[in-house]
Amino acid sequence: MDIEEFRKRGYEAVDRICKYYKELDNHNVLPNVRPGYLKELLPKEAPEEPESFDAIQSDIETKIIPGVTHWQSPNFFAFYPANSSFPGILGDMYSDMFGCIGFNWITSPACTELETIVLDWVGKLIGLDKTFLSDGYGGGVIQGTASEATLVALIAARQRVIDKYKAEGLTEEQLHVISSRLIAYGSTQTHSCLKKSTMIANVRFRALSTDEKFSLRGDTIKREIEKDISQGLIPCFLNGTIGTTSSAAVDHISELADAIQGTDVWLHIDAAYAGSALVCPEYQHYLDGVDRADSFNFNMHKWLLTNFDTSCLWVKRRKLLISALTITPEFLKNPASESGLVLDYRDWQLPLGRRFRSLKIWFVLRTYGAKGLREHIRKSISLAKHFQNRLLSEYSDLFAISTEQAFSLVCFHVIPNVKSRKTSNELTEEVYNRVNETQKIYLTHTKLNDQFVIRFVVGSPWTAKEHVDRAFDLIVKITKEAISH
Amino acid sequence: MDIEEFRKRGYEAVDRICKYYKELDNHNVLPNVRPGYLKELLPKEAPEEPESFDAIQSDIETKIIPGVTHWQSPNFFAFYPANSSFPGILGDMYSDMFGCIGFNWITSPACTELETIVLDWVGKLIGLDKTFLSDGYGGGVIQGTASEATLVALIAARQRVIDKYKAEGLTEEQLHVISSRLIAYGSTQTHSCLKKSTMIANVRFRALSTDEKFSLRGDTIKREIEKDISQGLIPCFLNGTIGTTSSAAVDHISELADAIQGTDVWLHIDAAYAGSALVCPEYQHYLDGVDRADSFNFNMHKWLLTNFDTSCLWVKRRKLLISALTITPEFLKNPASESGLVLDYRDWQLPLGRRFRSLKIWFVLRTYGAKGLREHIRKSISLAKHFQNRLLSEYSDLFAISTEQAFSLVCFHVIPNVKSRKTSNELTEEVYNRVNETQKIYLTHTKLNDQFVIRFVVGSPWTAKEHVDRAFDLIVKITKEAISH
Repeated sequence: MDIEEFRKRGYEAVDRICKYYKELDNHNVLPNVRPGYLKELLPKEAPEEPESFDAIQSDIETKIIPGVTHWQSPNFFAFYPANSSFPGILGDMYSDMFGCIGFNWITSPACTELETIVLDWVGKLIGLDKTFLSDGYGGGVIQGTASEATLVALIAARQRVIDKYKAEGLTEEQLHVISSRLIAYGSTQTHSCLKKSTMIANVRFRALSTDEKFSLRGDTIKREIEKDISQGLIPCFLNGTIGTTSSAAVDHISELADAIQGTDVWLHIDAAYAGSALVCPEYQHYLDGVDRADSFNFNMHKWLLTNFDTSCLWVKRRKLLISALTITPEFLKNPASESGLVLDYRDWQLPLGRRFRSLKIWFVLRTYGAKGLREHIRKSISLAKHFQNRLLSEYSDLFAISTEQAFSLVCFHVIPNVKSRKTSNELTEEVYNRVNETQKIYLTHTKLNDQFVIRFVVGSPWTAKEHVDRAFDLIVKITKEAISH
Repeated sequence: MDIEEFRKRGYEAVDRICKYYKELDNHNVLPNVRPGYLKELLPKEAPEEPESFDAIQSDIETKIIPGVTHWQSPNFFAFYPANSSFPGILGDMYSDMFGCIGFNWITSPACTELETIVLDWVGKLIGLDKTFLSDGYGGGVIQGTASEATLVALIAARQRVIDKYKAEGLTEEQLHVISSRLIAYGSTQTHSCLKKSTMIANVRFRALSTDEKFSLRGDTIKREIEKDISQGLIPCFLNGTIGTTSSAAVDHISELADAIQGTDVWLHIDAAYAGSALVCPEYQHYLDGVDRADSFNFNMHKWLLTNFDTSCLWVKRRKLLISALTITPEFLKNPASESGLVLDYRDWQLPLGRRFRSLKIWFVLRTYGAKGLREHIRKSISLAKHFQNRLLSEYSDLFAISTEQAFSLVCFHVIPNVKSRKTSNELTEEVYNRVNETQKIYLTHTKLNDQFVIRFVVGSPWTAKEHVDRAFDLIVKITKEAISH
């Protein structure tokens, strides 16, 4: 494919993207395919001879699109949103133009420096304490996902403890024993990525119980740490969440910070979803206590209009991250890195290679402005409020709210009527399955205190009141059927 | 930005990409900026009001491009290549159109199924043993980088050993002790990502010495394993490399497979760079022994025209990977996953989220055809050969080859003449630094047996004989100056 053919195909791709978003509301959000559908449609081997791009475009229409779950659809209310935007897509196009791999400063200075700058911009925008910014000892870095951010923070936490014992003169063998006694904590509501991180890093893990609002409290963690220390374990990491996956609950960060005072425990704050709401001053009170945390993470690719993958991680002492993750073989040595004047982001992450991802953040911040981003967040939250209001005002006989609406998430379940032979859990699960089977909207579920709960999350910039109302009407219709059968 | 503005800006982005590649040869490959240059040019905070896209485009030209290292340039001979292509860029555009997050089958069936299919295509194309394909117990998955592929394989290796001891009835505390005794091996030439992976996973690591051709041999590893077992350690992982970072050396995979026979050691093959050459039958003999490995990885984003990030990992028993990396909280449960009929790639990787990356692999394979990919590899290798021939035939008084040319890499150093007061190392380092200071071409270096060595790697599809000749002439000119001063 030469430059002029690329121009033609590039224009066509842009047109196709426009068409996709114009028609997005007409598609079912869930696809109607069975496992293995694509294998039956494609050859068993790569072609020997080049094929024309027409053939590829045609296969996109007939073979790929029928099997896509439309995450950008206005009718997608599942998980948490992962919304992109046009400026974000353009950011990726420019990133792909350069195709640079910015692991060291010299491998693309603009790639490193723009990342430092926009992470400072975003940090300020969400009201993060200035100790997390790059001016002092801290700084931000783009990770692929919150999973990687959590793992990276855990590795730094572990290294800090090991280094302390090393400084006390322990031998390598003794350090291996220390290492096998480290323990990390989260709550029963913490995202599964923490448990996975501890499995990967080979650190013990315990999930602590929460209060009735699904928030982790200081006294719980204090008690646990004391017990574990008395039993010879070494607490090293605590995850606090702002906006849990199940119910968007917020842990009491201030209490957590109090509880670990004077210990070697690293406090990491996971605000993967709800962090985006912090662009609005009215939510920044959730940051109380975060100034005492060691690291903070949220995903711009969830609810802040920046395409996956832009998970933003800030640390208070970048030195700790770097010392835990640096290895410098000969081929990576270079004058700029040795000058000490530059950041080499390879030392802030798991992999070596990295893309020019700050471009899309930069494009999004500038195209929307802080104002536009706040409008987006407030609109999502008010649409969720509208959904909850209709549930409560029109059908309080059919539905109950499982937890208070938090951010743009509504958790609800179905109430059986006196004649019903089905339990609330059975009914809610049935409604949930039948709604998704229509493929018209997509919901996910969770369990809260053994209650089967439907989660309804608003986040797409394409979602308007009419979509929420249509989803509401569909849920009501199916619930009435389920109750009467 | 509405749909019609995106169409306009999208066309402009496509035009800008065309212009970039038309002019790429006119740019210096290395930028002329000092650390901190960008901070002086950009505001300290995100804008409050939306800005026009004109302003962003203009900043790309005046502030970003001057700070970019041009990895796609025909004059980039550093590291290993990381080449993209137009079909690859188009693949990313379609991926961004969908913006789907394919962690479970149901979150986008096409995303999962196309990945399984194209990884089978690529596996067949490079001659991988059929036990690595998805038909049987194996299968392929796209990782972000070889670092992640190595870490994932290491985690699976560790879990296999732990599970074995668990089955023997060891307690959790005993398993912690076992875990602290695990050890992984590579050679002194293994990529630094292995050491980093062992740091992350908290597994001991030892780098073993190689033969005079920088290849790891079976007797070395056999001796080491026996010694470690006798000292109470538990060997669990061995990395063999096809195409090392420093000199593109190839370990004796068959010997490694023999050496670990009957042990619990997982054999992982890292062919990050050289794996691309395996699309040519004349290089497939390097796969001897790989049929006995547990996992195999190479990066299509290095030398096979597919934009970063497409690191392809195959495992022989996917069950082992999945059992080491699966966690299923309530919100990820769904009927398709529970049916057992589908793959959920979240269980094959570190993070939860993942992009639709198989599209770009599919586009590249079809647009070039197997034939076109082979031509690309053979052209790179023949250009490297041309460079080496000129070194040896025209200037054998100035230069010596440090190791035999391997794939598209030439390693050489400068020979001091009788009158020179500088050593070979001093001269070579001086030439290396002065060539890069011209910013016209980009080279990287390594050390082989304490010899400072310049690496010259060909890989860009834009690199023609004239670029290699120009680079050669520049190196000769600077070398002559360095020798005479």
